[in-house]
Amino acid sequence: MTSSSSFSRFDGRAQDQMRAVKITRGFTSNPAGSVLVEFGNTRVMCTASVELGVPRFKRDSGEGWLTAEYAMLPAATAERNRRESMAGKVKGRTHEISRLIGRSLRAAVDLSQLGENTIAIDCDVLQADGGTRTASITGAYVALADAIKVLQERGVVPGSPLLAPVAAVSVGLVDGNVCLDLPYEEDSRADVDLNVVMTEHGEFVEIQGTGEETTFTRAQLNDMLDYAEKGCRELVAAQKAALGI
Amino acid sequence: MTSSSSFSRFDGRAQDQMRAVKITRGFTSNPAGSVLVEFGNTRVMCTASVELGVPRFKRDSGEGWLTAEYAMLPAATAERNRRESMAGKVKGRTHEISRLIGRSLRAAVDLSQLGENTIAIDCDVLQADGGTRTASITGAYVALADAIKVLQERGVVPGSPLLAPVAAVSVGLVDGNVCLDLPYEEDSRADVDLNVVMTEHGEFVEIQGTGEETTFTRAQLNDMLDYAEKGCRELVAAQKAALGI
Amino acid sequence: MTSSSSFSRFDGRAQDQMRAVKITRGFTSNPAGSVLVEFGNTRVMCTASVELGVPRFKRDSGEGWLTAEYAMLPAATAERNRRESMAGKVKGRTHEISRLIGRSLRAAVDLSQLGENTIAIDCDVLQADGGTRTASITGAYVALADAIKVLQERGVVPGSPLLAPVAAVSVGLVDGNVCLDLPYEEDSRADVDLNVVMTEHGEFVEIQGTGEETTFTRAQLNDMLDYAEKGCRELVAAQKAALGI
Amino acid sequence: MTSSSSFSRFDGRAQDQMRAVKITRGFTSNPAGSVLVEFGNTRVMCTASVELGVPRFKRDSGEGWLTAEYAMLPAATAERNRRESMAGKVKGRTHEISRLIGRSLRAAVDLSQLGENTIAIDCDVLQADGGTRTASITGAYVALADAIKVLQERGVVPGSPLLAPVAAVSVGLVDGNVCLDLPYEEDSRADVDLNVVMTEHGEFVEIQGTGEETTFTRAQLNDMLDYAEKGCRELVAAQKAALGI
Amino acid sequence: MTSSSSFSRFDGRAQDQMRAVKITRGFTSNPAGSVLVEFGNTRVMCTASVELGVPRFKRDSGEGWLTAEYAMLPAATAERNRRESMAGKVKGRTHEISRLIGRSLRAAVDLSQLGENTIAIDCDVLQADGGTRTASITGAYVALADAIKVLQERGVVPGSPLLAPVAAVSVGLVDGNVCLDLPYEEDSRADVDLNVVMTEHGEFVEIQGTGEETTFTRAQLNDMLDYAEKGCRELVAAQKAALGI
Amino acid sequence: MTSSSSFSRFDGRAQDQMRAVKITRGFTSNPAGSVLVEFGNTRVMCTASVELGVPRFKRDSGEGWLTAEYAMLPAATAERNRRESMAGKVKGRTHEISRLIGRSLRAAVDLSQLGENTIAIDCDVLQADGGTRTASITGAYVALADAIKVLQERGVVPGSPLLAPVAAVSVGLVDGNVCLDLPYEEDSRADVDLNVVMTEHGEFVEIQGTGEETTFTRAQLNDMLDYAEKGCRELVAAQKAALGI
Repeated sequence: MTSSSSFSRFDGRAQDQMRAVKITRGFTSNPAGSVLVEFGNTRVMCTASVELGVPRFKRDSGEGWLTAEYAMLPAATAERNRRESMAGKVKGRTHEISRLIGRSLRAAVDLSQLGENTIAIDCDVLQADGGTRTASITGAYVALADAIKVLQERGVVPGSPLLAPVAAVSVGLVDGNVCLDLPYEEDSRADVDLNVVMTEHGEFVEIQGTGEETTFTRAQLNDMLDYAEKGCRELVAAQKAALGI
Repeated sequence: MTSSSSFSRFDGRAQDQMRAVKITRGFTSNPAGSVLVEFGNTRVMCTASVELGVPRFKRDSGEGWLTAEYAMLPAATAERNRRESMAGKVKGRTHEISRLIGRSLRAAVDLSQLGENTIAIDCDVLQADGGTRTASITGAYVALADAIKVLQERGVVPGSPLLAPVAAVSVGLVDGNVCLDLPYEEDSRADVDLNVVMTEHGEFVEIQGTGEETTFTRAQLNDMLDYAEKGCRELVAAQKAALGI
Repeated sequence: MTSSSSFSRFDGRAQDQMRAVKITRGFTSNPAGSVLVEFGNTRVMCTASVELGVPRFKRDSGEGWLTAEYAMLPAATAERNRRESMAGKVKGRTHEISRLIGRSLRAAVDLSQLGENTIAIDCDVLQADGGTRTASITGAYVALADAIKVLQERGVVPGSPLLAPVAAVSVGLVDGNVCLDLPYEEDSRADVDLNVVMTEHGEFVEIQGTGEETTFTRAQLNDMLDYAEKGCRELVAAQKAALGI
Repeated sequence: MTSSSSFSRFDGRAQDQMRAVKITRGFTSNPAGSVLVEFGNTRVMCTASVELGVPRFKRDSGEGWLTAEYAMLPAATAERNRRESMAGKVKGRTHEISRLIGRSLRAAVDLSQLGENTIAIDCDVLQADGGTRTASITGAYVALADAIKVLQERGVVPGSPLLAPVAAVSVGLVDGNVCLDLPYEEDSRADVDLNVVMTEHGEFVEIQGTGEETTFTRAQLNDMLDYAEKGCRELVAAQKAALGI
Repeated sequence: MTSSSSFSRFDGRAQDQMRAVKITRGFTSNPAGSVLVEFGNTRVMCTASVELGVPRFKRDSGEGWLTAEYAMLPAATAERNRRESMAGKVKGRTHEISRLIGRSLRAAVDLSQLGENTIAIDCDVLQADGGTRTASITGAYVALADAIKVLQERGVVPGSPLLAPVAAVSVGLVDGNVCLDLPYEEDSRADVDLNVVMTEHGEFVEIQGTGEETTFTRAQLNDMLDYAEKGCRELVAAQKAALGI
Repeated sequence: MTSSSSFSRFDGRAQDQMRAVKITRGFTSNPAGSVLVEFGNTRVMCTASVELGVPRFKRDSGEGWLTAEYAMLPAATAERNRRESMAGKVKGRTHEISRLIGRSLRAAVDLSQLGENTIAIDCDVLQADGGTRTASITGAYVALADAIKVLQERGVVPGSPLLAPVAAVSVGLVDGNVCLDLPYEEDSRADVDLNVVMTEHGEFVEIQGTGEETTFTRAQLNDMLDYAEKGCRELVAAQKAALGI
């Protein structure tokens, strides 16, 4: 494993250790599913709302759909970031993360069992300290599970659309050392940043690795994937504990 | 007082009774001031961030400035509302409320004591059940007070810009009965809706009354203002309790 | 009454005196109703156009609808203001006033008597000298009356939707003195600005009072409302004279 | 000349006859130049405002600049047209006409004599009955002349930037007959529509001819240009009469 | 003819000589018609795509429609120009040219023979060296012809909608000399710029002449039209050769 | 290796075989670097333009910057796609790919050797048949190399900023079989899609793998990475051959 004996993380964690993870269900009461997820100081409100009908491209398919939108509250970051609605344009980064969350959650739902209904996932970051996209995916799965339960109870959903849990975590290379679940302090100076979305069964839903400042080798990738697998396994356990399953 | 002996509110409150009010300071840690304010089921995250410098029209004035932005999270309402950044346009209602909050809070700060700094207030509604604008103003004052304290401690603010507390409440005519602090269930069928912003000293900062479905008399206005005064007095007490002053 | 014996208005008017009001019907010929309204040097073209059908939320209700849009021509102000269509964004102030005009005029029409038709009010300020929103509302009522007469003659409107006249005026506190119908010169240095929309019968449709620079007492509010009532009574008389009723 | 003995215009005019032209100076008082121009029922408010400084591409050139914006009020047309600021996009037709007016008026001003000032022309159509762009150019010249006089009196403009009058008129082929100054009724069924901008000296500033429904021959073009020359000569006379020169 | 014996063009061409014209059919394979047109160094990709159905204003008319969009690739010009999609607004110039191309090509097609189908013309400038709008029109006709052939083969188009060829060329006054088909070097310093769209039969579809820096006489216009006629005749020959007709 | 003996690709290629790759330098002449890259039927025009100065966040850093924009011409796809400038909004997919290209190319340039200059990469897809983002990156490197050479010749660039070649390729799982360089026909029905950006030295710059319809195992990922490495090696060879190095 790529690591130097002298390296220590600024918050004292082991290199393969997650931050404290907390998942609070029923955070708000209007949406069918509402979860506050915390990865250390990162806090995201994840909701799953149900809308009757499906977008045009799914009409008359007999299947449902799932969309996702991610946003950062203006005061979530250390320095206030401009509200996108007022700026009049949505940042590329926001689009990118919204699309990632949508794809990841669609891997957790069997659309053919959903009827012609749409589930709208919203992930709004209340406080940002690195890993907002991975926390969003992890929390959104729990909100999704709650929403589907509501739909089933109301008789809206004909089948059993919920699939195995999906969770996500980031891994990075910090000063050449593989580290799991980077907070902002590490993320901002990491050479490589890898986000991994996995199912309960250890299969990949999505991997996105980037090394803008530097490049990374196949061996480093393998080390990072090992850490990610460990992290996702723990996150799925937290999801299941929260859901009481 | 305009009221029928047989009238009773759906949640059992007296006509001049506020919902439970809760003000939580330090709700998040990045902005200088961060407050969660609750009026019953209405929950708003109010933050006060500090930005160096002032907008162009205030440059070289030696004074500071304060702006405010209000927004509703998509899942805050009973039915999901479309995210304004994605819709590409900000609703008139949002603009209207943002401007109201800005004007109200500027009445609570002496800009000449602020130095050439800007305080950005953000009020993001996590859960909406009527009275989101009045809760926003009430909570934002507390966030503002915290932010100014931080600025003073850091030596950024030269003077003592914080003025007397400002709070806001809604009053309405429901089936001809004056009611204080309307939740959504009452608000949606009220004939008249009056929002009042007041200082600790019982002076008006802003009043906005509208009777789209009907009109209202001078006598009804006077009754509503009496209720509003009572509500604001209680809200100021809650603000001061939260601030420990 | 709050006034100092030594106070005199820059244009010589008494404190409770309106500027010269002029209402010209048939100002243009394409819309069903077209009025030029003048409050002193403030001149607004108010039109009422009829569109078949109603917005989605009113469809199949059997009722009609009324919308309003307000705009300032670029050269209306002392210093040219940027054209909103070219700037690509509509100012919050414009949204706010458009919404106020719409609510106010809906109080002058019985939508259930209108059939599924929409009346579109447009208020375009040709020359601005304070009070553009109150002049707009006052003139728009006359344009509305003309439009409804045309609709009735054409047999489009089944019933008698026109209700009692609605007029609007501004009152302010200038150097501590209550003044009626403020021109720009007074408005720009007023401590408090109150806009009042009233029916012919002296009932309120809307009141909006703001004191950004200062606050105002209940007693001052009462004085201002007295002046506003007087102003609206005179404006309704002018509307009726113009309509020959 | 292309004409059939049996052809007669719906308003009784001769084929080479202009509609009644009326130019009212001082229509509003805020801008340096303000003109209401009428070609029959077409009425356009043309203003010339002065802004200190020039756009970036002219900075430090020692020269001035002139821009123009054209817009149609929503109620100007027989059927209400949507307000471009609310639609969120400016129509291609609007851009096209704004650019035409700008180029045409720049031919009437010696930018090197203007100092580093910008003249902003606004042409807002109050009532549309064909020929709005040609009426705009014709009226805007008069507003420009007034604005330059004001600038000279104030000592802002160092030289004598005003050049010879520029006027514009439309000509068309209606049922194969050349007609001058088309109202909407003719314009909407014309086969060819030619707009000509000319100086007092009979030279062309701009010609734009289009025959979407059909094509036109060189001979027809020549006939149309003869009529246009007559029309522009008369319009320049009207401009000079209005300006008292 | 307006010309001085001593004048010579910077690329050695005679004043009435076109640049080398090249028309390549089948430039790409997805759209029904795809052409690369070159006027010297100006290169435009012109495509004609077919979309089922027609815009709302043509619905149930039994007729088809044709639209056109023009754009400049960012790197087409000597200095990179900003991508309009990223800038968030389409330039007036782009709108103007798109509309010109649309009108010109509609003169080459009998919409009543097209069935309720829409042909979308796209002209994307790969390399710009003056005359991009005239090259676009000339190339687009060939793409249109190919698309209509495809539609006829597929049995989509009921009739024979293709009309006689339409081509376009620019003429200008350079230092007082009439010149045909201006490259950027001449265009940027020309006093007058005239774009002419003609049919195979020498009839005008559109003429647009502008002299921002100066004006032009009727005699100069006549000389320019003679040159344009010669240019268009040669372009139609090139179109026919490319189409093998 | 995951493959079934009976599987064969619709175009007859071996599973680990690239499509024909063609790189044409000097495709247009205005930008400093201009390349047409072809991966089979996918054709992308890649240009590198130089702009003096750097964005605000890099000012006074002594370093340069590189940005990238990707776009699809409307007629590039089988069915015409709407032009983003006219739609008024840029799709999330476009943003995502533009950002990917930018990050990838920044790995090929030493910004500290560039001086305070910005290189703007534009990748415009003329014809799309799968793999447009990977072809864009591969072609853009060659355009970048040409642009830097020009800059060095002109003396604009002080150092040697060009780093080792960077190329990109897609790999996918089609009916459970790993396939290299997917055309649209395979891409649209692939279970997993992995895009890999690598340097000449076999190190990763970026990996993005997604399995919306399904998930993928670590073993499948390893097989896909092996194929990608082979593909990138061949692409770098093609880049070097094109550059004559």
